[in-house]
Amino acid sequence: MKGKIFKRLESADEALAIFFDNLPAAPLEAEEVPIEEGLSRVLARDVVAPRSVPESDRAAMDGYAVLSEDVLGASQTNPALLRVVGRIEAGSRPGLRISGGEAAAIATGAPMPYGADAVVMVEHTRAVSGSEIEVYSPATPGENVQAAGEDVRAGEAILRRGTKLRPWDIGMLAALGIASVEVVRRPRVAIISTGDELSELGDRTEPGKVINSSRFILSAMVRELGGAPIYLGIARDSIEDIRAKIGEGLRACDAVLITGGTSVGEGDLVPEAINSLGKPGMLVHGVSLRPGMPTGLAAVGGKPVVSLSGYTVAAMMGFITFFRPLMLRLLGSKPDPAPKILAKMARRVASPAGARAFLRVSVEKGAGGDYVAEPLRSSGSGILSSVVKANGLVVIPEWKEGVEEGEEVEVELLRPLG
Amino acid sequence: MKGKIFKRLESADEALAIFFDNLPAAPLEAEEVPIEEGLSRVLARDVVAPRSVPESDRAAMDGYAVLSEDVLGASQTNPALLRVVGRIEAGSRPGLRISGGEAAAIATGAPMPYGADAVVMVEHTRAVSGSEIEVYSPATPGENVQAAGEDVRAGEAILRRGTKLRPWDIGMLAALGIASVEVVRRPRVAIISTGDELSELGDRTEPGKVINSSRFILSAMVRELGGAPIYLGIARDSIEDIRAKIGEGLRACDAVLITGGTSVGEGDLVPEAINSLGKPGMLVHGVSLRPGMPTGLAAVGGKPVVSLSGYTVAAMMGFITFFRPLMLRLLGSKPDPAPKILAKMARRVASPAGARAFLRVSVEKGAGGDYVAEPLRSSGSGILSSVVKANGLVVIPEWKEGVEEGEEVEVELLRPLG
Repeated sequence: MKGKIFKRLESADEALAIFFDNLPAAPLEAEEVPIEEGLSRVLARDVVAPRSVPESDRAAMDGYAVLSEDVLGASQTNPALLRVVGRIEAGSRPGLRISGGEAAAIATGAPMPYGADAVVMVEHTRAVSGSEIEVYSPATPGENVQAAGEDVRAGEAILRRGTKLRPWDIGMLAALGIASVEVVRRPRVAIISTGDELSELGDRTEPGKVINSSRFILSAMVRELGGAPIYLGIARDSIEDIRAKIGEGLRACDAVLITGGTSVGEGDLVPEAINSLGKPGMLVHGVSLRPGMPTGLAAVGGKPVVSLSGYTVAAMMGFITFFRPLMLRLLGSKPDPAPKILAKMARRVASPAGARAFLRVSVEKGAGGDYVAEPLRSSGSGILSSVVKANGLVVIPEWKEGVEEGEEVEVELLRPLG
Repeated sequence: MKGKIFKRLESADEALAIFFDNLPAAPLEAEEVPIEEGLSRVLARDVVAPRSVPESDRAAMDGYAVLSEDVLGASQTNPALLRVVGRIEAGSRPGLRISGGEAAAIATGAPMPYGADAVVMVEHTRAVSGSEIEVYSPATPGENVQAAGEDVRAGEAILRRGTKLRPWDIGMLAALGIASVEVVRRPRVAIISTGDELSELGDRTEPGKVINSSRFILSAMVRELGGAPIYLGIARDSIEDIRAKIGEGLRACDAVLITGGTSVGEGDLVPEAINSLGKPGMLVHGVSLRPGMPTGLAAVGGKPVVSLSGYTVAAMMGFITFFRPLMLRLLGSKPDPAPKILAKMARRVASPAGARAFLRVSVEKGAGGDYVAEPLRSSGSGILSSVVKANGLVVIPEWKEGVEEGEEVEVELLRPLG
C-alpha cells in the first residue's frame, strides 16, 4: 500500500453502486455470428421460433400408422385386420393418405400419413399376408406420435436475450433452421500495467526487476468472462506515459483496466492521469476489501476505468468484486452459477470488521466425511501461490470479524477437490 | 428406440468400466503452447519453479531499510538516529550495502540493501537533516520485508500435471519466467451423424426432413471440454457409408462419436459397421439410462467409438455419462467442480428402478426461501426444449424409483437462476 492512508474506504457495494451510476446501463451493441461460433456468447435479442419442431406429426416408434378408431378394442383374441397401403421411411416427403381399414408401415421419425392418428408398435402386430396385418392392441389417438410443435411451436420465444448460449441452445437454433444469431459484441478491455520495477516476460530480466504477471492473469480473466483483452504494455511511472496509455485505451476499447500506481504517495499517478482525461474521473479510491483496498473506480466520458493494486492477489480480488459485474453489465448477462460447497474451518482466521475479506483455502474431505477448509498460510496481497495452491475461496462479509475454528462457511471452488 | 428390445442393459457404471478396460489409460501426448494460449489447457507435466519469487528480499512498504538491532527499543522519547546513505527505487539493481548506524530510503517492491533486515515505515520516522532520520519505533528482523522465496521457492513443484490452467496459474508461470508450457494435446473427436431423415442446416429443407441439430450440440460439448470436434457429415443409412465414415474418424481422430443408427431393427447398422472395422468392436450396446438407453460403447484398435441415440436429449445424456469421462481420461484431468444446489421437488416423478434417470427441472426460489425444482413436462428423449427451458438437471440414481413431491434433491445448475 506504500504507506497510504485512504481518507475514507467505501464499502464494496457502495463503491459498485457509485461506479454503475456513472456508466450507461445498456449492454454493448449486437453482432451477428454463425451459430457454430455462438457458444458462450450472449444473445442480444429474444429468439422467436420461425417454425414448429417437429414441423409435422411424426412416428415416435417403428410400426404401423393407423386410425385409432380402427384398432379400438383390438386384442390377441380379437385382432383388427388392416390393409397395408404403403411404407414411409424416415426423411421421406409427407404425401400418403390412409383411410379406414388401412395402415402404413412407418419408421421412427418418418412423417405420419394423412388420416392416421396413432402408431402401433411392430411388436403388437403380425403380417398375415403380403399386404395385410393383424393388430393385437388398441392405440389411443396420438399414441407413439410426436405431434407437430410438440418440442417448439412456431412463434414461441424460445431463447431470451441475455442468455449465455450453451451447447443445447446452439442445437435448438439449428433445429429451428437458424444459421446465424445476434449476440452482444465482446467487450474490448484495455489492460495497462504501471511500475518501473516491472519487466516483461521474455525480456532479459535484470536483477531487481519483477516480471509483469498481473497482465496475464487479468487477460485470462477477461477472456473467461467473454471479453477481448488488449494489452497496451507497461506505462512508466510518469503522468505523461500513464495518461497516454489510458487515453489510448479509452479510444480503442470499451473499458480500461490498469494495475499499480494507485497509492497516495509519490507514485500515485493513476488517479491524476484519469482525472486529467475527462469527467467525472475518479469516483471511488480505496475500498473495504482485503486484499484489494487500493482499488479505484472511475468513468471518463461514459467509459469505465478500473485501477487495481499492483499486487497480483489484490488485483484479482478487485477484479472479481468490480470488473466481473462490469463485464456482465456490458454483456447484459447474469453470472454463471458458481460451484459452492459448505465446509468447516480448520482454524480461526481474524479479519477486520467493516472489510470484505477473501480467504484462500484448501478444502479436503475430513475424517467425519465433512469438508474441512484449511486457510492458506501465506496471505499477503502479492503472494500469488496462495491462490495457485488454493482450491477454494471464502468471502468473509463486512459485518463479520473473521471466522471461527469449526465454523461452517460457504466455499467457492476454484479447482476440482483433491 | 425403433422398437428395439436390448438383450441386457448394462448399468452406467459397469458399462463405463468395460469401456475403459479396453482403452489405453495414459492421456494423449503433450504439445508446447505459449502461456497466453494456455488458459483451460491441461498440464502434461509438473511445473517445477526454476527460480524463487521474489528472487531477493524486497521492501513490502515505503520507508527506510535498517538493521533491526539499530532500532531496538526505539520510541518517541528515545528515537534512534540513523544516517541515510542512499535511496533504492522499485526496479533498481540490488547493490547498496548498509552498516550499523545507517539506513536507506526504500520504495515498496525495491530490493533490500545488503546488511539491512527490516523496513521502518515512513510514518515512524522523521528527517532531522538532509542525511539523517530519527526512528520512533523498533522493527523486528524481517518486518515489512518480503523475503526471497516467500511466494515460491526455487525447485518447488508449484503446479501438478493434470491441472487445468486457470488465470492465476498462467500468472504464476509468467512470474516464474516460463513463457511456454507443455499441455496435453486437444483430443480430436470425429462427429458423424446417421439417418436418411436428416438434412444439414442451410440446405433447402425438404418436407419430411429433420435438420441435423445433434452435431452442433455435440461439437459444442466437445469444445467445452477442451476437445477439437471434427464433423464428418451425415452417413446415409447403409453399412458401407457408415463404415467408411467411422474408418475415416478412426484414422484422423482420437475418438469417434456417432449418432443414430443404434437400434436393433433394420436400421441398426452402426454396431455392424463398428465390428467390421476391428477388435474388440462393440463392448456395450444398451445401458440403463433414461433417456440414453440405446447408447453403444466400442473400441477399435485402442480407439474409442461412442454410438449415441439419434434423439438429441438421449444423445446428450449418453455424452454426459460416457463421453465426458472419456475426454477427461484422454486429457488426464479431473472434472471441473459443478455448480449444485439443494431443492425440493415440486411434484412426484416416477422413474423405473434400475435405470439412471436425468430429470430436466426449472428451479426457482419458493415462498419459504427454499429452492423448488419443477420438472419440465415434455420429457421425451427428442424434446430438446426440455433442456433449453431447464436451468437444472437432477440425476435419479439406479436404486431409486423416482422422486417424491417435497423430496430434497441435488440439482446441477445448467444456467443462472431466475
